[in-house]
Amino acid sequence: MYIGKRRNVPLQIRVIFYDKDNAESHDLKDFSDLEPLLSQADGRKKWIDIIGICHTDVLDKLGKLFGIHPLILEDIANTEQRPKFEEFDHYLFMTVKELSYQASAAILFERQISLVLGSDYVISFQEESSPLIEEGRNRLVSGATRRQEKGPDYLAYRIIDSVVDQYFDIIEKIADNIEDLEEKMIQDLSGKPMRSFMRMRRLLSVLLHSVFPLRESLSRIEKRDSHIISQEILPFFRDVYDHSVHIMESVENQRDILGGIMDVYLSYQNNKMNAVMKVLTIIATIFMPLSFVASVYGMNFKNIPELNWPYGYLYFWIVIVCSVSLMLYFFRKKKWL
Amino acid sequence: MYIGKRRNVPLQIRVIFYDKDNAESHDLKDFSDLEPLLSQADGRKKWIDIIGICHTDVLDKLGKLFGIHPLILEDIANTEQRPKFEEFDHYLFMTVKELSYQASAAILFERQISLVLGSDYVISFQEESSPLIEEGRNRLVSGATRRQEKGPDYLAYRIIDSVVDQYFDIIEKIADNIEDLEEKMIQDLSGKPMRSFMRMRRLLSVLLHSVFPLRESLSRIEKRDSHIISQEILPFFRDVYDHSVHIMESVENQRDILGGIMDVYLSYQNNKMNAVMKVLTIIATIFMPLSFVASVYGMNFKNIPELNWPYGYLYFWIVIVCSVSLMLYFFRKKKWL
Amino acid sequence: MYIGKRRNVPLQIRVIFYDKDNAESHDLKDFSDLEPLLSQADGRKKWIDIIGICHTDVLDKLGKLFGIHPLILEDIANTEQRPKFEEFDHYLFMTVKELSYQASAAILFERQISLVLGSDYVISFQEESSPLIEEGRNRLVSGATRRQEKGPDYLAYRIIDSVVDQYFDIIEKIADNIEDLEEKMIQDLSGKPMRSFMRMRRLLSVLLHSVFPLRESLSRIEKRDSHIISQEILPFFRDVYDHSVHIMESVENQRDILGGIMDVYLSYQNNKMNAVMKVLTIIATIFMPLSFVASVYGMNFKNIPELNWPYGYLYFWIVIVCSVSLMLYFFRKKKWL
Amino acid sequence: MYIGKRRNVPLQIRVIFYDKDNAESHDLKDFSDLEPLLSQADGRKKWIDIIGICHTDVLDKLGKLFGIHPLILEDIANTEQRPKFEEFDHYLFMTVKELSYQASAAILFERQISLVLGSDYVISFQEESSPLIEEGRNRLVSGATRRQEKGPDYLAYRIIDSVVDQYFDIIEKIADNIEDLEEKMIQDLSGKPMRSFMRMRRLLSVLLHSVFPLRESLSRIEKRDSHIISQEILPFFRDVYDHSVHIMESVENQRDILGGIMDVYLSYQNNKMNAVMKVLTIIATIFMPLSFVASVYGMNFKNIPELNWPYGYLYFWIVIVCSVSLMLYFFRKKKWL
Amino acid sequence: MYIGKRRNVPLQIRVIFYDKDNAESHDLKDFSDLEPLLSQADGRKKWIDIIGICHTDVLDKLGKLFGIHPLILEDIANTEQRPKFEEFDHYLFMTVKELSYQASAAILFERQISLVLGSDYVISFQEESSPLIEEGRNRLVSGATRRQEKGPDYLAYRIIDSVVDQYFDIIEKIADNIEDLEEKMIQDLSGKPMRSFMRMRRLLSVLLHSVFPLRESLSRIEKRDSHIISQEILPFFRDVYDHSVHIMESVENQRDILGGIMDVYLSYQNNKMNAVMKVLTIIATIFMPLSFVASVYGMNFKNIPELNWPYGYLYFWIVIVCSVSLMLYFFRKKKWL
Repeated sequence: MYIGKRRNVPLQIRVIFYDKDNAESHDLKDFSDLEPLLSQADGRKKWIDIIGICHTDVLDKLGKLFGIHPLILEDIANTEQRPKFEEFDHYLFMTVKELSYQASAAILFERQISLVLGSDYVISFQEESSPLIEEGRNRLVSGATRRQEKGPDYLAYRIIDSVVDQYFDIIEKIADNIEDLEEKMIQDLSGKPMRSFMRMRRLLSVLLHSVFPLRESLSRIEKRDSHIISQEILPFFRDVYDHSVHIMESVENQRDILGGIMDVYLSYQNNKMNAVMKVLTIIATIFMPLSFVASVYGMNFKNIPELNWPYGYLYFWIVIVCSVSLMLYFFRKKKWL
Repeated sequence: MYIGKRRNVPLQIRVIFYDKDNAESHDLKDFSDLEPLLSQADGRKKWIDIIGICHTDVLDKLGKLFGIHPLILEDIANTEQRPKFEEFDHYLFMTVKELSYQASAAILFERQISLVLGSDYVISFQEESSPLIEEGRNRLVSGATRRQEKGPDYLAYRIIDSVVDQYFDIIEKIADNIEDLEEKMIQDLSGKPMRSFMRMRRLLSVLLHSVFPLRESLSRIEKRDSHIISQEILPFFRDVYDHSVHIMESVENQRDILGGIMDVYLSYQNNKMNAVMKVLTIIATIFMPLSFVASVYGMNFKNIPELNWPYGYLYFWIVIVCSVSLMLYFFRKKKWL
Repeated sequence: MYIGKRRNVPLQIRVIFYDKDNAESHDLKDFSDLEPLLSQADGRKKWIDIIGICHTDVLDKLGKLFGIHPLILEDIANTEQRPKFEEFDHYLFMTVKELSYQASAAILFERQISLVLGSDYVISFQEESSPLIEEGRNRLVSGATRRQEKGPDYLAYRIIDSVVDQYFDIIEKIADNIEDLEEKMIQDLSGKPMRSFMRMRRLLSVLLHSVFPLRESLSRIEKRDSHIISQEILPFFRDVYDHSVHIMESVENQRDILGGIMDVYLSYQNNKMNAVMKVLTIIATIFMPLSFVASVYGMNFKNIPELNWPYGYLYFWIVIVCSVSLMLYFFRKKKWL
Repeated sequence: MYIGKRRNVPLQIRVIFYDKDNAESHDLKDFSDLEPLLSQADGRKKWIDIIGICHTDVLDKLGKLFGIHPLILEDIANTEQRPKFEEFDHYLFMTVKELSYQASAAILFERQISLVLGSDYVISFQEESSPLIEEGRNRLVSGATRRQEKGPDYLAYRIIDSVVDQYFDIIEKIADNIEDLEEKMIQDLSGKPMRSFMRMRRLLSVLLHSVFPLRESLSRIEKRDSHIISQEILPFFRDVYDHSVHIMESVENQRDILGGIMDVYLSYQNNKMNAVMKVLTIIATIFMPLSFVASVYGMNFKNIPELNWPYGYLYFWIVIVCSVSLMLYFFRKKKWL
Repeated sequence: MYIGKRRNVPLQIRVIFYDKDNAESHDLKDFSDLEPLLSQADGRKKWIDIIGICHTDVLDKLGKLFGIHPLILEDIANTEQRPKFEEFDHYLFMTVKELSYQASAAILFERQISLVLGSDYVISFQEESSPLIEEGRNRLVSGATRRQEKGPDYLAYRIIDSVVDQYFDIIEKIADNIEDLEEKMIQDLSGKPMRSFMRMRRLLSVLLHSVFPLRESLSRIEKRDSHIISQEILPFFRDVYDHSVHIMESVENQRDILGGIMDVYLSYQNNKMNAVMKVLTIIATIFMPLSFVASVYGMNFKNIPELNWPYGYLYFWIVIVCSVSLMLYFFRKKKWL
């Protein structure tokens, strides 16, 4: 799993001015173009989308432009950042982890998305271009969003909501993987499936560590009274909060299932051993005495009366067959067969 | 187990007007009939029962009619919804999961019931027709409910209470199943009972995830001061709350019992192995030395004095019998026999 | 264990009027005698003791007489009730579980005792006649209680205190049982002791589920300011609360000990297996090579030089004895012997 | 471990009057001497030390003299008491458990010390004479305490602090024992070390149950505003509180270590079994086929061509040596050797 | 791991006066030089750095000079101190544990750093010279810190922050070690890797016990309103707090991973045993019957017809080969081969 490596993503700055009726998109080549452009906003709401958070100089300049605290800028640039929420007088800050799951290799990819939400603007910072934000952007530009009249707070909600929705997808896929593995593991008692389960457990762990602080943040948003998020939009955030709680419960549930599966697996291994040992014991119990009897009559004592009986060999076989039958009966009674 | 698939249930709208003395039931064919009908309520209390939440257009219209928040409508339509409680100025919203248990196949079925509770009406939304609500409706229409003078808040309590009562039934059945399995598992050490126990654990988990948020909701109802639930009815909700706590403890208890059973099972498997190994060891310990002795006298050395003794063969058997007796004594002393 | 079956206990109503100096006991035949009798109380404190809670009609009438909420009456009649505490304006309600332990069969019996405590009366409801209450009654009537001047709140405390004291006895007995079992289990590795331990764990669980809600109730009594329990008596309730906390810790402690014992047991089973396997391996390691050598000289090759040596047989035994000694030395060095 | 047996300790009453400069000690023969003595206090601070809490009549009289609540007197006399803290208008009450550890036998001894702290006096009740208090007393009398000008609250702090310090010693000794055992356990896989570890776990449990309620008490002392403990002395109590938290963390830590050791132990037992099984399997895999081959040439068929080959016996040995070499190679490749 | 031994470190006193533009460093030979030196501060901020906390006389004098509570001085001198935070009127006190990790030997070294933070000074106490503080000092003296205009509160933040940053490094190294071990453990089923994992678990435990109280302290700093830490600096402390939470989650995560690895390891050991047992069983199942058959024809009965068949020996081999093939087929079908 990728965690925290700083990827060198080329800088992209994209600005969207939008109001109830229209949305106007600008792709900037250079940061210096931003300030003149913003002066053309004309009271429209602004969405500034920055791709490539490794360009710290740009972050610094943007920070100065919008009055963002230097520590926040550090948080934006640091991809090992734990999801967090900070409230300031004139803006809110939030980071979330976008996760994408490659089911075939059981790998989770992490992309950090940070949001700075002001009263009439939202700035999004992407570690690298995220399809989720791309889609939201397209919908806004194409006018597919009915609620365009709503402010940047609604926009922020949409972004967070789509991230959380993706968590649902991921946990569902992981649950499917676990179910698949559960079926297969019965066939393979070599201990290898345990490693796959361990992998699943780690993925759940990553998911939990992404969603747990997010839930915390959302709970704080819900409780505090910030003028930046309007009363009308608050229920939407409460809704995402509920979803995050739901995800956490699902993760816990899946972990619980994994724990149970491991117990079953151990029990199967034990049972396999029992089965193997039974075969061995049955074979040994039958053939050791027989071999002994055969050895006895292979002895070279001068005077072994049985050897001279005319039907000695026949009697020998009769004794053998009887004792084997007896043993088989005994094993059957003991439910070993 | 069915979770979250949208079933295509034909729409039914049923309206009951009732007061202290009478109850009048109407089955509507079409949503457009609802508004005119409601104008005939004449101050009587209203219970509007919607079956088939997949008809989102109806939900939308109803939402507009009663001023229900769009997010709540989404929650009603989403059967993967976690049970929740929301408080608004002029109505309360609550979803619960009705569960029914098919003991033979150890399957739980889930049906979502949502309630919108206003000061003089209650709207119930059923995923598909639930016998619980059917029964409550019949009782109300037939006048079997003594407390008909009570308002929609009491009606809502009755519905939630019957759902919770069913949880009690289910947990009792699961407990019975677990007890049955516990008896059977001693006979079958193949690891298969473990899977049955796992199944039980998952059922308990589903139950827990239905009742836990319900308990939370009820606790919030109890604490807040809503004008929609009257002081007189509050103790009833507190009572359901107590029941939900009781159920959670029972689930925890059953999980604990399951955990203990698995420990016992593992211990039994170990013991079985011990028993098998003991048999093998006894057999080998007895017959390996005997076979060796027999082999010795099967050797073809020119000069083996014993072979020429007149009673050599007899002596041989005496030695064999003595040593076997000795070993058996030894095993008995070691408590292997 | 008996839980929740409604036993058909004949109704008994017993009324005691008492003040500082005297106590006067009346056994009533019929409920209709109660009201006239109560009018003779003359300002004395009243203890009304009802045995047999299956007589719901009596409960209903009593409820009307003393103004008890219908839900409380339901709680009194329902023996599957979780212990609870409810506060009303003019009375307090509390249920506790009296437990009695039959150590020989490791069975817990449960009897529900409910108390309705008013400012000058206490009503006790017994599922069936409890020796604890019987004893308290005798003491009161015979004047053995020094604190007779104290009110019904003290009486209620005494009843609850004696129930809690019995929990101490029970947990001590269970601890003794566990200790006994711990000694025995070393002898019996068949997995059967595990079931006994499981039984103990369930008993502890029952105890916990009786004392946990009781502790909660007592904590609420202590915190709230009810005029029904006087300031003077509050420290007594705090004392019972401390006891209930102590019991919970003891139960947790015993559960912990049980958990540890199970680990030890598993370890003993493993060790037993190791011991058995070692014997097998030693036997096989010694006799398999010997048997092979003996077999070699039992072969019928035309030309086996050793067979014709004059002391071949002697040499054979010398080789055998040497190699066995060597192996024994090797096993001793490996600490297998 | 000794818990709760009432020991018959002869009564000792010792009174110390002290102020900034002097300390004056009196040993009383009889309780009746106490009251006259106290009247000679002359405004000096008083420490009354009672040894032998089984003399309940003395406790009662003392209780009346100082106005101590009867329940508190019961708590003082009851050595099975859970450590607790109670606040009254004119005095504070506290019990702690002095523990002493006999490392050789891994036994903990418990002595209960109760303190009643008034504004100008402290009364200590000892189950039996405790060296800790003896030492504190000597220091006070001999003037070795620099802070003699401080009041009874400081004295109480000193006593509690010395008890808590002893907990540190004990946990350190237990940690040493655990470390010793960990080294030894590798040699002894018989399951016996598990019992020693269990013993350690119980000792930790006793320690935890002594320190946990103490921590609670100290936290309450710190938070409440009692005129009996002066502002100047409060930081000292906060310090003991910190120590108690530290001890609890250490206990948790040691429990965690014990848990880990048990896992390792189980793993070692498993590995031992693996090693034993490997030896067995190697022996069997080598000698079973060899024995078979030897048996074949011991058969008495009329016509076995190999038997008549001139170098048949030599070829036989060549085949044997080759196949053994092959098997050994195979085992080495499989890392069994 | 080194814990709590008092090392005899020679005393060093280093004073830095600094303001926005300059920093002036003084190395003192003797404590008596300190007071005169401080009088030359001229309103500049002061950082007094004491190395060697075993010199309690110096601590005492310093305590008097700055009015530090005696208990705090004890805390500074006691290296077994749990990290803590105390707030006083004119200064704040904090201890942290600097940890350094020697990955090769898997050893953690602990150094205690205490800080006394006043409004215009910070005093740092080092158990022995720490590279972290050395570096911070160099940066300050050389003017490499841009934020020199900030006060002692910022300085204190820098020190704590660098300690916490080192925790991140350590946990990352431990995580690497765990990953390495996980790879290796598959090869070595002797139980030895378990001990390494145990060691890792203990290291994580030490880390947790260092960071947990630190997090608590930081949370209290953030919440309280102390005039000593300015509003401007508070966000920095909140940032360290976030880091400490992050570390705790990482530790929990690593512990979880360790737990999972142990499960996998146990499962691998079980599987290994299964594999060994299968080989044994296959060998025994094939050769025991064969040996029996060979023994039969080694018997010396007078009349064994098969022995006289002309192709008896050939038939024997045909039977042998067929039955071996059959068994191999059977084993393959059972997936044992």
